[in-house]
Amino acid sequence: MTIERFANLPAPPYYAVIFSSQRPADSDNDGYGPMAEYLDAKVRQQPGFLGVESTRDTEGFGITVAYFDSEEAIAAWRRDAEHATARERGRKAWYEHFELRIAKVERAYGKARQHGTDE
Amino acid sequence: MTIERFANLPAPPYYAVIFSSQRPADSDNDGYGPMAEYLDAKVRQQPGFLGVESTRDTEGFGITVAYFDSEEAIAAWRRDAEHATARERGRKAWYEHFELRIAKVERAYGKARQHGTDE
Repeated sequence: MTIERFANLPAPPYYAVIFSSQRPADSDNDGYGPMAEYLDAKVRQQPGFLGVESTRDTEGFGITVAYFDSEEAIAAWRRDAEHATARERGRKAWYEHFELRIAKVERAYGKARQHGTDE
Repeated sequence: MTIERFANLPAPPYYAVIFSSQRPADSDNDGYGPMAEYLDAKVRQQPGFLGVESTRDTEGFGITVAYFDSEEAIAAWRRDAEHATARERGRKAWYEHFELRIAKVERAYGKARQHGTDE
């Protein structure tokens, strides 16, 4: 089921790292895929990590939103050495452009059609 | 250029509406496309609207983040009659599942490779 694409989060407040990025058109075999998968697995082990949602269209434009329980958890993930190395590589090669925004989630709503009610 | 996919935002603080959704696999010709385009054009006219970024992958999982200058602007957009009608239709038919989160953006960073510097 596609339900696993959604982060299963506690009630707000919590924090969101909103990352939008444009991958180059000629981006096959540049090492991005394996590193992205590795970091996705690693961030899930990060203390304070709550969940992540991510998607990218056929034009290479993607949005990933990672959720954490505190700003401290975000700062700790930012200090992770492998994550820092990947960020540097991303800055130089993997992304034509990106935007990163840190936000405090104050309210949340959801809907699953299979249940027919708000969650 | 792909740069138009990114919202050109002022310095924080501002507000984000983070909408993640799963479209059904059998979703051709259900009226979603024209309504989504219409509402995208309309929200850009909304007072307090700052920008929007949106993407959806080939599995139908999408994330849209719309930015506004205040919670009042979000509330006003929520009261828009056509938007409300579309939300009801989305709830019943267009989405298998969705999650909506309202957040206050506190910090932001960006990078454009073509300029080689942070923005």
